[in-house]
Amino acid sequence: MYFDNAATTRMDDRVLEAMLPYLKDAYGNASGRYSLGYEARRAVNEARVQAASLIGAEPDEIYFTSGATESNNIALKNAEGALITSEAEHPSVVNTALYCKSTGRNAAFVKPDVKGKVEPKSLEEAFNNTAAGRTKDGLVSVMFVNNELGTVNPVAELADIAHSHGWMFHTDAVQAAGHIPTDVKSIKADLLSIGGHKLYGPKGTGLLYIKRGVRIPGLFNGGSQERGIIPGTENVAGIVGLGKACEIAKLETSENLRKEKEISSFIKEGLLKTIPGTVQNGDGEWILNFSFRKVNGTSLTLRLDMEGICVSTGSACSLGTEEISHVLRSIGLEKALAEGSLRISIGKYNTMDEAKILVKKIQSLTEELRVFAV
Amino acid sequence: MYFDNAATTRMDDRVLEAMLPYLKDAYGNASGRYSLGYEARRAVNEARVQAASLIGAEPDEIYFTSGATESNNIALKNAEGALITSEAEHPSVVNTALYCKSTGRNAAFVKPDVKGKVEPKSLEEAFNNTAAGRTKDGLVSVMFVNNELGTVNPVAELADIAHSHGWMFHTDAVQAAGHIPTDVKSIKADLLSIGGHKLYGPKGTGLLYIKRGVRIPGLFNGGSQERGIIPGTENVAGIVGLGKACEIAKLETSENLRKEKEISSFIKEGLLKTIPGTVQNGDGEWILNFSFRKVNGTSLTLRLDMEGICVSTGSACSLGTEEISHVLRSIGLEKALAEGSLRISIGKYNTMDEAKILVKKIQSLTEELRVFAV
Repeated sequence: MYFDNAATTRMDDRVLEAMLPYLKDAYGNASGRYSLGYEARRAVNEARVQAASLIGAEPDEIYFTSGATESNNIALKNAEGALITSEAEHPSVVNTALYCKSTGRNAAFVKPDVKGKVEPKSLEEAFNNTAAGRTKDGLVSVMFVNNELGTVNPVAELADIAHSHGWMFHTDAVQAAGHIPTDVKSIKADLLSIGGHKLYGPKGTGLLYIKRGVRIPGLFNGGSQERGIIPGTENVAGIVGLGKACEIAKLETSENLRKEKEISSFIKEGLLKTIPGTVQNGDGEWILNFSFRKVNGTSLTLRLDMEGICVSTGSACSLGTEEISHVLRSIGLEKALAEGSLRISIGKYNTMDEAKILVKKIQSLTEELRVFAV
Repeated sequence: MYFDNAATTRMDDRVLEAMLPYLKDAYGNASGRYSLGYEARRAVNEARVQAASLIGAEPDEIYFTSGATESNNIALKNAEGALITSEAEHPSVVNTALYCKSTGRNAAFVKPDVKGKVEPKSLEEAFNNTAAGRTKDGLVSVMFVNNELGTVNPVAELADIAHSHGWMFHTDAVQAAGHIPTDVKSIKADLLSIGGHKLYGPKGTGLLYIKRGVRIPGLFNGGSQERGIIPGTENVAGIVGLGKACEIAKLETSENLRKEKEISSFIKEGLLKTIPGTVQNGDGEWILNFSFRKVNGTSLTLRLDMEGICVSTGSACSLGTEEISHVLRSIGLEKALAEGSLRISIGKYNTMDEAKILVKKIQSLTEELRVFAV
């Protein structure tokens, strides 16, 4: 039972099926001047159309990357001017902004509200009250959906504010695409990042949407692939998989969301009402973050794993980092609660039956683990 | 019939077989703290051992990247001090060095000899006669095997020279690995790049060897994957594929090379002796670059494609770039010959029967195309 869809998703079988020819006989280099190369080129182009269609972009606004980390790094590092972002962003944004700051660029970090939401008025304040905000040119980068809390940001309003100051707007839409409509025109994004593996597509793939007219260089030098912005032989099979994942998402997102919300409501009710002292951190609707008083999140995760259930602690993003997550810190969660936090992220393959088992297991395990807590 | 193995290779079926579980049920994020995550982590670790074994490195010296372009960019951009490289490097090295130069770093470009080989004495001269060479710290980057000419560079000697000046040595070994022994200790490399898809592995994968003790940051900021040097969710299936490709290469390289040289000798003899005025550019033994007088390389490639044969013009690296390759320019090839150049690159799936057909077709097509040449 897999409830860690915000970490990665099971690849859709239709995605694998679309990829397989390019892992076998259609192995050409997309730059090859022969049929095998043209076949690869056509496949990459088709994927570009599929990806563009999901986010309401034009195909020539899509640049395939090795993942959202690359997309976010390109957006932040190579945009002109200052940066304003939030304290609750993914490490690939927060750490990149910190890096940019260390190189002398102006950068400001907006504190989200207690739910993890970046309020438009907070962004406006950052424009008024920080050195970064008073810079003529710059980039605002705020994620569409928070990866730890599930909280959805008012990205269109934030984009409006950025634009009103003559700045550009970037959003890390990794946790949005495939769950809620993610349309670059509604968001008014100049730059937008998506990662394939959060969308039932392959790991090692992603894209950066760059609005027509926006000039932004890449981070690598090399050949002319992806118009020189992402040089290197195209990962044809991966790109085809990402394209297929986007095509499927476009068709099935609304039905998936309906189902995910149903499951989500059941889990929320089950945990909040029956386990004393339980709180939901943030207000996610498919990414749910809970704290259980006097229960350690890591222990709970390990015990759930022994029962064959995959969830994640809300407090760590990658192995070896044991400290409390910067996201939980940014919303001011007290340490005891942050340590008890658990992220349950729902995806399209989850069922209500699974949710019922999950709730029961968490009920019994929190009781058991609380008994042993000092 | 595929004779463009220097552009990309057909993935080995055993590689795909190794990857498939990670494209299906074993889809965990390698940072996940549950069985599914540990399974992915173990697979990544095993691939690291396989990759290390191929090049005589320790597993903790292997950093998985999205491809050799990323590996080369990290090596050149983030090494300390000045740069010396050659004029005949891959675009991901030449253009990166030019970029570094444009940012104010000292960079010098050694001219190769007429065969495309970087002579130790030329490197020594660059140390003596250029501003870059007189810098205290720096990196020499010279490819092991030239991707257009097949010429093998004396990398160990070049590394000795770099070290004698207190510099580091990097080699782009993309066209070497899987064809000739590629051992970091024999080469005395501090940094070494490999790309998966030239090695019968997946596109979108590669590695950078970083010798223990060498401190070099990555180009992205984000999570702590690959010890923070290549952050972002690991491309588990891709990494597994690269590992398997390395394992196979270790076992089968010497037998492959024997076969490749046999085919290569046959093709060389067939073309050089029977087509008047034909010359081999460089002295490659599995990557062969020929010029045919009064025959346009692009026309020849297109006609061969119509016969179901994939080869490449020696003059272009990626679609849309029609000018004569910087490699052919670097060896001083006259324009008329450079335009007639053709790259035939042999891989482990080629057979002598294919070589016979290839030679016959080129014989008849060069005759035909020469008739129509003005």
